[in-house]
Amino acid sequence: MSSSEDNLVISSDPLHPANLIPELCRSFYHLGWVTGTGGGICIRVGDKAYIAPSGVQKERIKSEHIFVLPYPQPPPSPHTDRVFLRRPSLNLKESACTPLFWNSFDLRGAGSCIHTHSQHAVMATLLWTGPVFRISHQMIKGVRVAGTGTALSYLDTLELPIIENTPNEEDLKDGMAEAMIKYPNAAGVLVRRHGVYVWGLDWEKAKTQTECLDYLFEIGVKMKLAGLPTVMNDS
Amino acid sequence: MSSSEDNLVISSDPLHPANLIPELCRSFYHLGWVTGTGGGICIRVGDKAYIAPSGVQKERIKSEHIFVLPYPQPPPSPHTDRVFLRRPSLNLKESACTPLFWNSFDLRGAGSCIHTHSQHAVMATLLWTGPVFRISHQMIKGVRVAGTGTALSYLDTLELPIIENTPNEEDLKDGMAEAMIKYPNAAGVLVRRHGVYVWGLDWEKAKTQTECLDYLFEIGVKMKLAGLPTVMNDS
Amino acid sequence: MSSSEDNLVISSDPLHPANLIPELCRSFYHLGWVTGTGGGICIRVGDKAYIAPSGVQKERIKSEHIFVLPYPQPPPSPHTDRVFLRRPSLNLKESACTPLFWNSFDLRGAGSCIHTHSQHAVMATLLWTGPVFRISHQMIKGVRVAGTGTALSYLDTLELPIIENTPNEEDLKDGMAEAMIKYPNAAGVLVRRHGVYVWGLDWEKAKTQTECLDYLFEIGVKMKLAGLPTVMNDS
Amino acid sequence: MSSSEDNLVISSDPLHPANLIPELCRSFYHLGWVTGTGGGICIRVGDKAYIAPSGVQKERIKSEHIFVLPYPQPPPSPHTDRVFLRRPSLNLKESACTPLFWNSFDLRGAGSCIHTHSQHAVMATLLWTGPVFRISHQMIKGVRVAGTGTALSYLDTLELPIIENTPNEEDLKDGMAEAMIKYPNAAGVLVRRHGVYVWGLDWEKAKTQTECLDYLFEIGVKMKLAGLPTVMNDS
Repeated sequence: MSSSEDNLVISSDPLHPANLIPELCRSFYHLGWVTGTGGGICIRVGDKAYIAPSGVQKERIKSEHIFVLPYPQPPPSPHTDRVFLRRPSLNLKESACTPLFWNSFDLRGAGSCIHTHSQHAVMATLLWTGPVFRISHQMIKGVRVAGTGTALSYLDTLELPIIENTPNEEDLKDGMAEAMIKYPNAAGVLVRRHGVYVWGLDWEKAKTQTECLDYLFEIGVKMKLAGLPTVMNDS
Repeated sequence: MSSSEDNLVISSDPLHPANLIPELCRSFYHLGWVTGTGGGICIRVGDKAYIAPSGVQKERIKSEHIFVLPYPQPPPSPHTDRVFLRRPSLNLKESACTPLFWNSFDLRGAGSCIHTHSQHAVMATLLWTGPVFRISHQMIKGVRVAGTGTALSYLDTLELPIIENTPNEEDLKDGMAEAMIKYPNAAGVLVRRHGVYVWGLDWEKAKTQTECLDYLFEIGVKMKLAGLPTVMNDS
Repeated sequence: MSSSEDNLVISSDPLHPANLIPELCRSFYHLGWVTGTGGGICIRVGDKAYIAPSGVQKERIKSEHIFVLPYPQPPPSPHTDRVFLRRPSLNLKESACTPLFWNSFDLRGAGSCIHTHSQHAVMATLLWTGPVFRISHQMIKGVRVAGTGTALSYLDTLELPIIENTPNEEDLKDGMAEAMIKYPNAAGVLVRRHGVYVWGLDWEKAKTQTECLDYLFEIGVKMKLAGLPTVMNDS
Repeated sequence: MSSSEDNLVISSDPLHPANLIPELCRSFYHLGWVTGTGGGICIRVGDKAYIAPSGVQKERIKSEHIFVLPYPQPPPSPHTDRVFLRRPSLNLKESACTPLFWNSFDLRGAGSCIHTHSQHAVMATLLWTGPVFRISHQMIKGVRVAGTGTALSYLDTLELPIIENTPNEEDLKDGMAEAMIKYPNAAGVLVRRHGVYVWGLDWEKAKTQTECLDYLFEIGVKMKLAGLPTVMNDS
């Protein structure tokens, strides 16, 4: 790598997004969140968004595979669909999650967004057959209102909208945006039979909130299967 | 790090508490005990207590993030809530578990206390709906009476009190202390829908007892869900 | 190692098959796919097929343990059963999976084939009692038609034939070939009470498809046990 | 370490028992076989038996912690209970499993014996309420008749005796020996509500057979809980 574009992903700082994304993807792989090339992550620092490529083994991504896009994007022209500051020289495809990551930036001011195919998330969308996943009286304090606000309390009921899946990931954009507007306090959006999108003000908060929500999907599924109620009625 | 306070957490000995806590937290993370910034650990050596900070990614803690407090604490004054020998220079919060760790020192003479959000512990508190978790005729020999005494026998029944959760971790202090007094032989205290506190004379015993208890929560939950009795009536 | 045969498995390139196979086997071991010496992998590059030995600890394989065979094999003679370009000098047995790996090369033009004993695969063959494993409306986009063609769509129904096991692995060859011909779109073949064979155009695609299918076996088994339908009737 | 006794556990060969035992114990810890100081392993090479100490964190054992005993033991005298070639200088206790490991040497000519507290083994002893664990038509080919003989066939029924637990591990010696004599083909002995002992001609075979049996306990438990028969009646 030698061009000025490549300098965008060369850094000796382990916390630089181009170094963090490979490390986090390896960790997500071992959590079962991104097996079989699924899932993805985007980290935005100011006006630059760093994104893992699509359709690759997530545990083997390298810094030089990272796409960099300007945020916000320039207005669309008849010639270009999306504008990049850097594309990897290899034959890599941009992430199909890009428009969905953009939702989190546009509608919540997020600085990072994570997409997993966690089986806990998928099972939650199968056992909660309606449009919302709900759980209360669990360790939900690690989740923030709207993903970017104040921390939830143990006494709150966590609500996450569940949208229906589409064959093409990009087509989820509008459904996800509608759900985010309809549930302004939700810290993420579940996609039925598919996975979850979670965001935060920065990568650390996006990651820890994804962990918290995945923990809640897992315990919620266990409770449902054991016949235990997942929401306590305080009234 | 250069001040004399920082010297409290600088050591080339891998068994120094400031080195052990990061290593143990990484291990606990991979066991699913401290995901999403939850859980915590305190190691006390004589009159110094070393504590991991609150609200951070537990698998990424470094020695320089460790708080050091004097034990016992000086009497409270109108100006100070808690006294520290060292606070990390970063913008880190002290652990909300601190008053609960103190219970284990004050009431049991413990040298280390561990708090997990293990789902096995949480499921145990959901399936044992009363105030006590009970199991017998399992490998409970690794657990000590009161957490600090002689080893239990295979023929003993292990009993752990379950206290109700509160929105603020600090508010668990009195409930935990009451449970420890009411159940003087208990090696830990479960918190309903939240997790468990376990202690031992030193970090090794606290850790191995936490492993033993987590093993018992896990097998107990499996037995309950399979319809098997978890306590055998010997009489 | 010094002979010209040994040069076939000596390379400083981490992506050389003789280096990849040990690394992948370690990874498969930790996924629970090849415990107790079970399972296997073959990578073919052009006219050379590299195969892990049989009956050894898969997580401890070294490059020097790899067999190299010519593809296609010369016509059988009365004196030789199979022809090798390299046999390890140690007392190692060739993989009993060899004839089955060959099916994937001969019938699909595959470049790599993976065999696992994953419990998700075995449970799937126990809960799908007929000759086919079927699932729809899950994240099946990572699987390709016939294992080597275009990607499946979310709206497709994934079908994998299940053949009956035989005491000797070699005797599965004909049953596997028949199933591959009968189900020309299948990306793998399940073996009842045994495991699965999955292939792809190269090792990356074989591996990611094995991950995708294992994910589908796992979620499918969970759904069956929870009483959820695994195929949606769109008509 | 400098004495001639210590030379028994100093070697640069990674396959020396004093180096293998720490490595294998770390691996067993991550498999959940030896959590909370439980479980153990013995490797015998000719007339020397190397044993991990008791009551310690198995994932932190070092070569210098290993006990070395002569095999066979000299006849008991009024002054000594057991004879050692080397005892660690630290305050470590010999393994309570020693008499049980000896059973595998005396009655089967084994070269290594492994004891786990695996929850799959324990659950198997709870769901198979009689004196024998039985399973057939699974991948049992990795298990050898009597643990040291020829490989089982897919069509064989694997049988493992289950003995009742005792408060002191040493007191299992006679029950284990009786079971080994009564079931001369068994490759291991399950201990109800406790775990399993598995042996082999050397450490590799003991380890891979422990993996195979643990795999069979796990799948057997899953099948039982799903209402599936674990033995097929061929007659």
